[in-house]
Amino acid sequence: MAKRKRKNRLSAKSHLPSGSMVYVGQDREQATQIKVIDYNDNQINEIYVNNIDELKTFAISETISWISVTGIQDSEKIEAICNVFDIHSLVQEDILNTQQRTKIEEFEQYLFVTFKNLYWDQEHACIDSEQISIILAKNCLISFQETDSELFTEIIKRLHTSMGNIRNRKSDYLLYKILDTAVDQYFILIDKIGDMVEDIEDETMHKPQAGTSQKIQSIKKELMLLSKHILPMREALNKLDSGHQNLIEERSLKYFRDVYDHTYQAYDTIENNRNLLSDLMNMYFTTMSNRLNQVMKVLTIISTIFMPLSFITGVFGMNFKVFPAIDNPNGYFYFWIISALVTVSMLIYFKKKRWF
Amino acid sequence: MAKRKRKNRLSAKSHLPSGSMVYVGQDREQATQIKVIDYNDNQINEIYVNNIDELKTFAISETISWISVTGIQDSEKIEAICNVFDIHSLVQEDILNTQQRTKIEEFEQYLFVTFKNLYWDQEHACIDSEQISIILAKNCLISFQETDSELFTEIIKRLHTSMGNIRNRKSDYLLYKILDTAVDQYFILIDKIGDMVEDIEDETMHKPQAGTSQKIQSIKKELMLLSKHILPMREALNKLDSGHQNLIEERSLKYFRDVYDHTYQAYDTIENNRNLLSDLMNMYFTTMSNRLNQVMKVLTIISTIFMPLSFITGVFGMNFKVFPAIDNPNGYFYFWIISALVTVSMLIYFKKKRWF
Amino acid sequence: MAKRKRKNRLSAKSHLPSGSMVYVGQDREQATQIKVIDYNDNQINEIYVNNIDELKTFAISETISWISVTGIQDSEKIEAICNVFDIHSLVQEDILNTQQRTKIEEFEQYLFVTFKNLYWDQEHACIDSEQISIILAKNCLISFQETDSELFTEIIKRLHTSMGNIRNRKSDYLLYKILDTAVDQYFILIDKIGDMVEDIEDETMHKPQAGTSQKIQSIKKELMLLSKHILPMREALNKLDSGHQNLIEERSLKYFRDVYDHTYQAYDTIENNRNLLSDLMNMYFTTMSNRLNQVMKVLTIISTIFMPLSFITGVFGMNFKVFPAIDNPNGYFYFWIISALVTVSMLIYFKKKRWF
Amino acid sequence: MAKRKRKNRLSAKSHLPSGSMVYVGQDREQATQIKVIDYNDNQINEIYVNNIDELKTFAISETISWISVTGIQDSEKIEAICNVFDIHSLVQEDILNTQQRTKIEEFEQYLFVTFKNLYWDQEHACIDSEQISIILAKNCLISFQETDSELFTEIIKRLHTSMGNIRNRKSDYLLYKILDTAVDQYFILIDKIGDMVEDIEDETMHKPQAGTSQKIQSIKKELMLLSKHILPMREALNKLDSGHQNLIEERSLKYFRDVYDHTYQAYDTIENNRNLLSDLMNMYFTTMSNRLNQVMKVLTIISTIFMPLSFITGVFGMNFKVFPAIDNPNGYFYFWIISALVTVSMLIYFKKKRWF
Amino acid sequence: MAKRKRKNRLSAKSHLPSGSMVYVGQDREQATQIKVIDYNDNQINEIYVNNIDELKTFAISETISWISVTGIQDSEKIEAICNVFDIHSLVQEDILNTQQRTKIEEFEQYLFVTFKNLYWDQEHACIDSEQISIILAKNCLISFQETDSELFTEIIKRLHTSMGNIRNRKSDYLLYKILDTAVDQYFILIDKIGDMVEDIEDETMHKPQAGTSQKIQSIKKELMLLSKHILPMREALNKLDSGHQNLIEERSLKYFRDVYDHTYQAYDTIENNRNLLSDLMNMYFTTMSNRLNQVMKVLTIISTIFMPLSFITGVFGMNFKVFPAIDNPNGYFYFWIISALVTVSMLIYFKKKRWF
Repeated sequence: MAKRKRKNRLSAKSHLPSGSMVYVGQDREQATQIKVIDYNDNQINEIYVNNIDELKTFAISETISWISVTGIQDSEKIEAICNVFDIHSLVQEDILNTQQRTKIEEFEQYLFVTFKNLYWDQEHACIDSEQISIILAKNCLISFQETDSELFTEIIKRLHTSMGNIRNRKSDYLLYKILDTAVDQYFILIDKIGDMVEDIEDETMHKPQAGTSQKIQSIKKELMLLSKHILPMREALNKLDSGHQNLIEERSLKYFRDVYDHTYQAYDTIENNRNLLSDLMNMYFTTMSNRLNQVMKVLTIISTIFMPLSFITGVFGMNFKVFPAIDNPNGYFYFWIISALVTVSMLIYFKKKRWF
Repeated sequence: MAKRKRKNRLSAKSHLPSGSMVYVGQDREQATQIKVIDYNDNQINEIYVNNIDELKTFAISETISWISVTGIQDSEKIEAICNVFDIHSLVQEDILNTQQRTKIEEFEQYLFVTFKNLYWDQEHACIDSEQISIILAKNCLISFQETDSELFTEIIKRLHTSMGNIRNRKSDYLLYKILDTAVDQYFILIDKIGDMVEDIEDETMHKPQAGTSQKIQSIKKELMLLSKHILPMREALNKLDSGHQNLIEERSLKYFRDVYDHTYQAYDTIENNRNLLSDLMNMYFTTMSNRLNQVMKVLTIISTIFMPLSFITGVFGMNFKVFPAIDNPNGYFYFWIISALVTVSMLIYFKKKRWF
Repeated sequence: MAKRKRKNRLSAKSHLPSGSMVYVGQDREQATQIKVIDYNDNQINEIYVNNIDELKTFAISETISWISVTGIQDSEKIEAICNVFDIHSLVQEDILNTQQRTKIEEFEQYLFVTFKNLYWDQEHACIDSEQISIILAKNCLISFQETDSELFTEIIKRLHTSMGNIRNRKSDYLLYKILDTAVDQYFILIDKIGDMVEDIEDETMHKPQAGTSQKIQSIKKELMLLSKHILPMREALNKLDSGHQNLIEERSLKYFRDVYDHTYQAYDTIENNRNLLSDLMNMYFTTMSNRLNQVMKVLTIISTIFMPLSFITGVFGMNFKVFPAIDNPNGYFYFWIISALVTVSMLIYFKKKRWF
Repeated sequence: MAKRKRKNRLSAKSHLPSGSMVYVGQDREQATQIKVIDYNDNQINEIYVNNIDELKTFAISETISWISVTGIQDSEKIEAICNVFDIHSLVQEDILNTQQRTKIEEFEQYLFVTFKNLYWDQEHACIDSEQISIILAKNCLISFQETDSELFTEIIKRLHTSMGNIRNRKSDYLLYKILDTAVDQYFILIDKIGDMVEDIEDETMHKPQAGTSQKIQSIKKELMLLSKHILPMREALNKLDSGHQNLIEERSLKYFRDVYDHTYQAYDTIENNRNLLSDLMNMYFTTMSNRLNQVMKVLTIISTIFMPLSFITGVFGMNFKVFPAIDNPNGYFYFWIISALVTVSMLIYFKKKRWF
Repeated sequence: MAKRKRKNRLSAKSHLPSGSMVYVGQDREQATQIKVIDYNDNQINEIYVNNIDELKTFAISETISWISVTGIQDSEKIEAICNVFDIHSLVQEDILNTQQRTKIEEFEQYLFVTFKNLYWDQEHACIDSEQISIILAKNCLISFQETDSELFTEIIKRLHTSMGNIRNRKSDYLLYKILDTAVDQYFILIDKIGDMVEDIEDETMHKPQAGTSQKIQSIKKELMLLSKHILPMREALNKLDSGHQNLIEERSLKYFRDVYDHTYQAYDTIENNRNLLSDLMNMYFTTMSNRLNQVMKVLTIISTIFMPLSFITGVFGMNFKVFPAIDNPNGYFYFWIISALVTVSMLIYFKKKRWF
């Protein structure tokens, strides 16, 4: 498993005057782009917006307006967009800081949601993440994403084809759809890692190698990363369910509850896999320890047989002037008999001790 | 223990447009079959229904109607059945997705229960599971099961023979009966695994082998599986107890509480067995380590005795021209005396160190 | 420690039609026997009852009636007794199933308490348990025990001698007395096991053997058993304290609180002992590992000294035609000098490395 | 660390009729002694009381009366004192049983507090404890201690010199003062053990020995003892804070809160030290394992060099009639060259493997 | 990593009469210095105050007055300052005792906050801490710090340049600013330690050495220290959020919530790193164990090959008078064939066992 990119500095903003808006995250070459998907039951329009002031009209209109902002490195532009909708400065900071913990925060006029879109980074063979921030207002949803992720593509397609009941619902249902799709992504990753766990289980059980423990560790790390993002997601959804948010219709709550159930299930699966990996680590230790035992037994058997034999050859190799045994014409014959006896009795001893 | 079948993909639905009903689970060749057991205190009828629209009449009738649907792969048919009873689309998805976490969810007109029927898969020597979903409505209970499991057979038999007070109760008592029977199944599995734990305890204590640790691990895995299903069952039943569900009669709550107590006891037993297995794993390590100690002692004793002896034979095997000891007529005799002294003193040393 | 008797099957009832009363437990040869201790402040009578219908009169009388049933294998008789007092069928099942978890359950007319009487089984050298179920009604307490345990003997004696204020109190005080005595029994066991822990601590510290770890494990198992029974007892008593049970007088609550405090203390002591045992297990591992180190050092020292020496003897044992050293008349002398130098330098090396 | 005195039997009272007052604890030769410190803002008197009935007058007086009872083995006397103040029989039992868990219990007319005074037992080099029970009534505080501990000495001195505002406060402030002083004692012990932890850390890091792990264990045991007493103290103080005790003035609550904060801090420090000790134990294992590795390497290097060399000498020591190498006049010279080559190549191999 | 300075004695005050104000902490040579930053929207003044009585005027004025006290060793002076503002004696003690646990306490007229300013001690290569206590009153904030830390420098600079909206807010916003800056400092430390974790991960994975485990431990210790201070900070901020403090404006609560979120995130990161370090420790063990296996295999291979060979040379080195093999002219040739066969068969055996 390749080395993960060095994580962004949590303290990147620490030495800057607070209150000033700064982008905290990886260098990405994504220019900030604003697309508005304006729809209601009958019609749907997809418009690219350059002049930020135009956004105001979408906010007021009766149709549902999804203002999708891609690329958040241009902090001034983000600030400008936020100011159009009168977003609290702390929220603006949170949008720009891609190290946010997943959370849902209620404000008087809007709901602020920030979470991670997780996907598999084929190149580094690890999970990568991208922060998505959403502001849910009446008839309006503003999303901020770091790059042009695939997460939104499918939802936009479905908005066009009008499948499901997504078009004749309010903006809260759109939010549900986005969160639901994000959690579905988590399941893809959990399945991928589940496969890796099964493979490493095979390896540990049937052909453990020196590198096996490192592989177990790196899978464990990916699982830790997943649970790090899923756990706060679950908490946030739970709070949403209990609190009476005025921006979410009563009939939509069932849907958010459903996403909550999914995060619960995701977390359960992750926990199971983590326990499994711990057990595999133990197994690996046992196997190593068994092998050591095996090696030591071979050494001991060999030594125990040949040391007495060598002693006997040594005895008959001595040069004493007076040495009755040597002169015995059957000496050589007796020597082999003694040697055979020693060997056989040793082998019987080890057999009885079940050493082989 | 044979290898468990690869688990179903949690993410099977992830790339499909959501809201479309899809079966998520193992391929089973069970065709969807609808059987209605319609009963009250006096009479009981068992009818196989082909035309889904007929179900409506059962829903309205005053008698208790248990609509038992077997085989849920035909998602369209399931959807059609659900629509007869005006079931929420999220519930429909949950019925079709056999990866659900056990839960009890209250809706205005009905109660939705989904849980796992666990049984012992003799062929793969592991626990297998089948999802059962139940919709409890007034005078009506609809059950969805993957295959024609034995779980329902006994209950139906008892309905016929009218043993117990099951026939003169409402549909909530039927739900209790089903859950109670399912939890009884769990106890059978717990007992089975309890026996395996006792066997492996014997093995670990009296004749630990290289494969013992793997066996401990695989039993641990079955226990994890059990607790994974029992824990949410307990939670769900607890919620049922505290919440004031209007579909469950006051006098029936004691019965659900009883099932809850059973899940509690089941979980306790599982926890105890898990602790026991952890301790056995430790024991196994200790035994292995003791054996290594034993092997090393044998090696050390042999080496410590024969290395000096070999040195002595080496000395007398040297070819020095001037070598007084060799010429001594009693040299050979002295040699044996020295050898005996070395051996005996070594043995005394090890005896004192309690090495054997 | 001898092997515990195989535990009863939790699933014994699973295949039987539920609702039918079945005894679940060990085979005991105890015939069902009913004794009534009827007392008030002034008088006390001990009557053996054969006709179950007679019990009714005791239930109505103003005096406190303790109906003590010994032997619960005869499920029909138990059912008959329960029906006299109109006991819920679930409670009847619980009385007959000796695998119950300790619990206190409130019904409208009575309080149901079931717990384990624990005692030391001298023969198998382990803790044995017997289930005691109690129904507390107004002026009446019905107890069910498996065998004629000593638990009740002392209480009955005290009722006779009228020591303490037990005779001029209601039946709730009698319940307290029984629970208090049961918890006192737990302390006797905790003390017994505490002694075993101290002994094994001595053994681990000063003369650890191959069997030490098994002994630690088996003590741990007994502790687990104790905490398995004490924990739900504590929970039940706590619930009793918080809930406003109408069968327990206000002034008696202090007493139940006192028993609760005792279970708390018992659990603390058990936890401490469990931690101690874990530490001892670690200690045992360390000692074993230290010994291995010791053994390996002896082997290494011996090998490191005698291998070079043997090589030297080998050199002078060669049969080269041209071999100057051999012909040197002081060769033999030099040989011993070299050998001594090798030995001494090796010993200095090991001394410096602090190997001995 | 010397062996702790065998702990008192928890079950000492178990076989005695309950309700009878019995002293449970170590044999101490302290005779029961009653001292009354009677004070208000203006005056303070210290009186030794022999006649228990005299105590009644102090209870009624408007001045604050601290009735300090030292030595509680004379259970009859304790009972008599308690009866003067109409103390509940369960409290009387608790005072006499020195195995109590720290607790604060509210009664209608008084507050009962029992806790442990911990101090360092120089002789056995371990923490020793003494139980202190306090009854806080209006204008009156009765304390029971096992021996004439130093805990009270300083408080009495301060009462005399009237430092702080202790004299013009109610009896609840006196209770605070006692608890505060007791918790200060805990800090002295925590510091003492903290020093021991730092010493053992040094030892583990720089010169670990066979006995190091035992020392770590015994420090861990002292920490367990401390936390065993501090934890319930914290709970009790927390309950005091939340409950509205009528015996404690509103303005005094801040002070009890302060003691609570101290116990919290104490517990934190203990937890940190326990974590540290666990880590040290791990470290010790690693060091031992590293040493084993070191020893094994030495053995392997020696064996790997001298075994081939010995083989070569063996070859040239053979007595074949036809043996070309032996007859070669440079044979002896070649032998040394081969030997040197073998040795050097082995050394290079180990150097490359970084074995030394 | 250098040795941390011995920690201050927690019990320093224990033997002193309580209520007397004493400084508990390191010896620092900082003289007590009082600086007042008096500001409102329009103006800002920085005044050094020597006469403590002057402070009163600042407390009354309508402008926001930040009274920054540096150096708290002069306990009399601190007491004097506190008395000007009528601060509770317990708070005064807390200010002087630098061992305080982070907490926020509400009083009627003011809010008391105490926390640790953490920074990296370059010299000892460990985290050092300094206690900061803050009293927040209406229009007034009094801060006490041990040394002239950099924490306040930036905030004062921003007050002057009037960046952000800090100048037109109340004193509660100033408190937020201080806490926010302190938590930002924590992130710098977390990042620093995160780097250390990544380095040690590299070392453990690719070139583990004898000292690696000690390095892992010492990083773990720093993390423990961090979490020890962050955890109570989080708790305190959470309490602030839930309680309705009258000194903190409704609109400021969002800001404190933001700091709370940061502490949450900080704690998550620390936890992740701690888990990582545990895993690294395991990894290190495995690597060590693998190496031992490797070493033992080398030893066993060498022994297994050369012991039989040496035996063979021994056989042909014997001096029997009658010794057919010796006299065979091809004996020497046969010897080498046998030796080669033994060696090759051994190598094949080890190859098959995958020992190299």
